[in-house]
Amino acid sequence: MSYKITGSGCYVPTVVQKNNAFLGLSFLDNHGTKFNENNETIIDKFNSITGIEERKYINSELKTSDIAHIAAQNAIEDANVDPETIDYIILAHNFGDISGDSKQIDILPSLASRVKAKLKIKNPKCVAYDILFGCPGWVEAMIQAHAFIKAGMAKKCLVVGSDALSRVVDLHDRDSMIYADGAGATILEETTEEGGILSHCTMTFTADNETDFIFYGKSYNRECFKGDKFIKMQGRKVYEFALSHVPKAMKQCLDKANIDVENLKKIFIHQANKKMDEAIVNRFLRLYNKPMRDDILPMNIEEYGNSSVATVPTLFDLVIKQNYKGHSLSKGDIILFSSVGAGMNINAITYQI
Amino acid sequence: MSYKITGSGCYVPTVVQKNNAFLGLSFLDNHGTKFNENNETIIDKFNSITGIEERKYINSELKTSDIAHIAAQNAIEDANVDPETIDYIILAHNFGDISGDSKQIDILPSLASRVKAKLKIKNPKCVAYDILFGCPGWVEAMIQAHAFIKAGMAKKCLVVGSDALSRVVDLHDRDSMIYADGAGATILEETTEEGGILSHCTMTFTADNETDFIFYGKSYNRECFKGDKFIKMQGRKVYEFALSHVPKAMKQCLDKANIDVENLKKIFIHQANKKMDEAIVNRFLRLYNKPMRDDILPMNIEEYGNSSVATVPTLFDLVIKQNYKGHSLSKGDIILFSSVGAGMNINAITYQI
Repeated sequence: MSYKITGSGCYVPTVVQKNNAFLGLSFLDNHGTKFNENNETIIDKFNSITGIEERKYINSELKTSDIAHIAAQNAIEDANVDPETIDYIILAHNFGDISGDSKQIDILPSLASRVKAKLKIKNPKCVAYDILFGCPGWVEAMIQAHAFIKAGMAKKCLVVGSDALSRVVDLHDRDSMIYADGAGATILEETTEEGGILSHCTMTFTADNETDFIFYGKSYNRECFKGDKFIKMQGRKVYEFALSHVPKAMKQCLDKANIDVENLKKIFIHQANKKMDEAIVNRFLRLYNKPMRDDILPMNIEEYGNSSVATVPTLFDLVIKQNYKGHSLSKGDIILFSSVGAGMNINAITYQI
Repeated sequence: MSYKITGSGCYVPTVVQKNNAFLGLSFLDNHGTKFNENNETIIDKFNSITGIEERKYINSELKTSDIAHIAAQNAIEDANVDPETIDYIILAHNFGDISGDSKQIDILPSLASRVKAKLKIKNPKCVAYDILFGCPGWVEAMIQAHAFIKAGMAKKCLVVGSDALSRVVDLHDRDSMIYADGAGATILEETTEEGGILSHCTMTFTADNETDFIFYGKSYNRECFKGDKFIKMQGRKVYEFALSHVPKAMKQCLDKANIDVENLKKIFIHQANKKMDEAIVNRFLRLYNKPMRDDILPMNIEEYGNSSVATVPTLFDLVIKQNYKGHSLSKGDIILFSSVGAGMNINAITYQI
């Protein structure tokens, strides 16, 4: 028995926000002080570190569950499964639904229930729930789907990652340029084919104040938005944390599957920050005394930004269907999914196409 | 191999809010119109239907994750397990953390991560995540813990249900009198003992607009609280839904475990509404052509109110430790856990002590 992705889908938000859209903003540091540099310099530096040229936002009529539904519908069609035969809908997100004219996070009922309703699935045995696990939510939801299949509780799971970070950005925080919106989805099925999920690994770090690294906090502008909260990050700490822990977790995962790193074709890593992602993969390969490889790391952060739980399934969908930026996948190829984010959580899956 | 609860704990909030605390409020219907009846009559009717005399609220310094931590700590001590050996922390809630002076739901990082940090657990292999599944969240988290153990991914799970509904009540809505705060927790372990989880059953209903039955909506007072949202319910629809679906789900679950209903000692049902819960159990027994039994249904809604995900584990903890209201449990006893709530979700577990 194996656990294979039989279909994937994504939603590509239609509002393209280029870096120069941030030129007129008044960025402050976390003490509320204006930077000495002008915005042009700030944006140039930002671009050279993160690789982000533009990001995608949803339009004001849409919410996280709406785009989750579109990605899910695409995955269902791609897998060619009867929606009524789906045993689980697992939806990872971090901010629920926030309507365009509201500041309030809405998570009742679960977004998975909303998606099930939009998909018009009648079968009550299709269990719909949400998981909150930071940016690694979609990878973790895949691991949970795999657990349900392995435990004999499911044969077919719809796994969705969807977030709209544009609804929680503090426009006085230059980190806001990182965040984007998006949704990606997959169908994971029990099959008799070879390959699929070969191993997985998850870690939650909280003993050294990691719960404060990525959080929901006040605006850097102390004068306005009283009471409102926004996505906030201690960027330097996140960077150091990721560099020190993610490569080891990826290695543990690959070694557990007993795969030679030479046979690893691609790494689908959470699109957090281009420099950071490259440094992680570099260090991961160094653990095997291997040099960096040009073809191993598909990235779409340049034009998609960091859409949290949506980055990995969206990038996978682009590569498997469109050979995005020349990255292709063939039957039998071995890949790693890996992500890091709020919690702080890290996870990885070794997967054979 | 079996899956047994080796410890339980709860947090009993310290602010006791009696029914007469609502005498001075201005209740409106969902069109914003004042009721013809005075509040004394409204409260009397409320009491006779729901059974609620008083409910418990947390004090303004506490949040959902704080009381989740206390319940978790109690369960860990009761089970006498080393916290560093816990493989999963699964936390069910519906509104995240809302601080006493804020209206904003805070779910980043996950509350499970916050609880792990408060428990000072160092082991990164202890995976912490939140599940959103309406009031049935704790029962569903138990089913997920069971899945991880069965799939060989865990041996010991901490399962917590925690909510602070006092932070999301609309004081112009008479349904607000139902809601309460609370937290309950259990340790589920793989053991070689007999009994434990014998069967389970879960359903998500969304095809007939059930996603609108319990939701996050505007105040019934159209003039104030602009933009703010509150817990809202279509009470009549919830009642009819529960009566028509929950008894059958409970029967499916018990039958799956191949247990004679005569051998069922107690039913730990979500404390939603006393009349509704009694009607559900009545109808469940009628499916077996059995009359209602006086001793089968422990209830604590009279003094605890409806604390969402916390009701079932809290009641279980009271009964197993204190023979609450004369209800006692002994080794070998067979019980049902069952819940219904936002989604709309229904679930049940047949469990042998």
